[in-house]
Amino acid sequence: MEIIKVNASKEYDVVIGGGILSSIGERCVSLFGKARALIVTDSNVAPLWLEKTKASLESAGIATLEFIFTAGEDSKSKETLFELLEFAAENRITRSDFAVALGGGVTGDMTGLASSLFLRSIPFIQVPTTLLAAVDSSVGGKTAVNLTAGKNLAGAFYQPSLVLCDTDTLSTLPDCEFANGMAEVIKYGVIFDKELFDKVQNGDVKSDIEKIIARCVELKRDVVAKDEFDCGDRQLLNFGHTMAHSVEKCSDFGIAHGGAVAIGMVIAAKASYALGWSDEDCTEAIINTNKNNNLPVECEFSPRMLADAALSDKKRSGGSINFVVPKKIGECILKKIPVEDLYKIAEYR
Amino acid sequence: MEIIKVNASKEYDVVIGGGILSSIGERCVSLFGKARALIVTDSNVAPLWLEKTKASLESAGIATLEFIFTAGEDSKSKETLFELLEFAAENRITRSDFAVALGGGVTGDMTGLASSLFLRSIPFIQVPTTLLAAVDSSVGGKTAVNLTAGKNLAGAFYQPSLVLCDTDTLSTLPDCEFANGMAEVIKYGVIFDKELFDKVQNGDVKSDIEKIIARCVELKRDVVAKDEFDCGDRQLLNFGHTMAHSVEKCSDFGIAHGGAVAIGMVIAAKASYALGWSDEDCTEAIINTNKNNNLPVECEFSPRMLADAALSDKKRSGGSINFVVPKKIGECILKKIPVEDLYKIAEYR
Repeated sequence: MEIIKVNASKEYDVVIGGGILSSIGERCVSLFGKARALIVTDSNVAPLWLEKTKASLESAGIATLEFIFTAGEDSKSKETLFELLEFAAENRITRSDFAVALGGGVTGDMTGLASSLFLRSIPFIQVPTTLLAAVDSSVGGKTAVNLTAGKNLAGAFYQPSLVLCDTDTLSTLPDCEFANGMAEVIKYGVIFDKELFDKVQNGDVKSDIEKIIARCVELKRDVVAKDEFDCGDRQLLNFGHTMAHSVEKCSDFGIAHGGAVAIGMVIAAKASYALGWSDEDCTEAIINTNKNNNLPVECEFSPRMLADAALSDKKRSGGSINFVVPKKIGECILKKIPVEDLYKIAEYR
Repeated sequence: MEIIKVNASKEYDVVIGGGILSSIGERCVSLFGKARALIVTDSNVAPLWLEKTKASLESAGIATLEFIFTAGEDSKSKETLFELLEFAAENRITRSDFAVALGGGVTGDMTGLASSLFLRSIPFIQVPTTLLAAVDSSVGGKTAVNLTAGKNLAGAFYQPSLVLCDTDTLSTLPDCEFANGMAEVIKYGVIFDKELFDKVQNGDVKSDIEKIIARCVELKRDVVAKDEFDCGDRQLLNFGHTMAHSVEKCSDFGIAHGGAVAIGMVIAAKASYALGWSDEDCTEAIINTNKNNNLPVECEFSPRMLADAALSDKKRSGGSINFVVPKKIGECILKKIPVEDLYKIAEYR
């Protein structure tokens, strides 16, 4: 078992290990006393992990309520958000109670935002059951829902009180979902850590997944501690994401976030070298690593479609954006570019 | 002109004076540079004050966009909130731009929440055009929309970058709206300041309104500085509000917030004395002051209806609530009471 301490506007532990879901009850009692738990989960995760979660909470003396929504990105919407808020109100959840986000990124982002909004905030914990959520969205306090105009455009910075990652839950993930998470792992390698990148390069990762997750969480923890509100270094985590969001939008979310990030990293690396922003060409290393981890390396959308979609992306500030350029594997920098350069970058899709 | 400096998680000025709306452009340029302004206002205020606001902003070189919604409490909803967020996204508002809440409490609360959520926060300023917003909701950073289950149940703590209160705008207020604001002024008097209470006791306030607003803002500023996130002393500001929220709900929002607070203060004073929580009976002083300021002193709802409605109120924490007890005019205390006592209190309606 690994425990990583996060120090953002709130201090909390990220606990990673096999079988630790059974300890959720006692951990929550020590954080919140005998409050009520509002468990939020989706229709995929509920049949797999809800009973075990409830059993542990209830045997620790915590009463539970459950809110189950239809799995999928479509649920990361104002409708589901407000159904959850009304559910909390109808059930008279108070500031002494807490929410449990049991699931992947959609569940975590929406539960976090609802927790931040309900009564102007109640505590919540993250229980990621996907690799993507474990290494990325469950840590660092970014919460959001999508707008019609784009992903994650309405949200809040709101930290959980605990992240509990039971690596046993990853065994029930479909292969493509596991691959989606690996895209973010590869991303951490390219931005910060060549050793991590090399470790996952051949795609043989499952036996060592606890350590790999822990390393990613450490890297994210460190950058969030420096820049919780995403004004500087935290933006490095957007490596591959400018084009990834476009790919997701152009595919009407048919291409999952991880796959889109994999494609976005290839475009970013290819464009950075071709446009002379980077002296080293990381494209081949990223393409090979993507392939070995069952991830895509290209998409069918035209440069113009991708660039247009990127222009409504929230990372834009006035007439320029911060684009993440890989200098080499293990080191990225932020480069301020005019938004028009998105059209140049998209040429390398 | 009065300028009051607020020191919460953000520092900002509250500027109060006649005719100062014409200075909004230059004040915003000095805060935000030549960003774009998203002006949010309602169908009542737009015909009165929108053109003057736009003219000042545009002559200072700030481009403007306007979002006008139907006036009224019904618009303090998820629907209007998300229409505004989608509007901001469609118009490619960025983190360098800012929002202007031009209007009363509904406009300020909803614009503040939308600003807090959009791209996980863009700056905004408050331009209160009602007395209620000027003395209360525009200062202190509480933002919210209503849920079906109750008022203000979904929101955020999010401070404005400036509050600009042009007292000329109060001249266009209907008498009943002015009276609604006076309920909050009377409330500040009862909680903190006998001198203020005495000053407004006979209802002759219009000639001195700039100083009265400034004094209320100072009192609010001081309590928000001590307790921005409403865990302690800030809850004193809820004097009269536990029952006020019930009165509003029972009347299906037919009784306005100010009127409901006026009634709620009378119930709180009467109950506090009758139940032995206060040695002094403030009821008569509050009733007389309410009447002199054209405010109601009682309602037709049964004790049971009021108490049931109060039970879904967000100030409840577990099995108890903090109820604000007037010890005497100018001094209130928080008293932790079991929620069941709401039924006793409501008997004094």
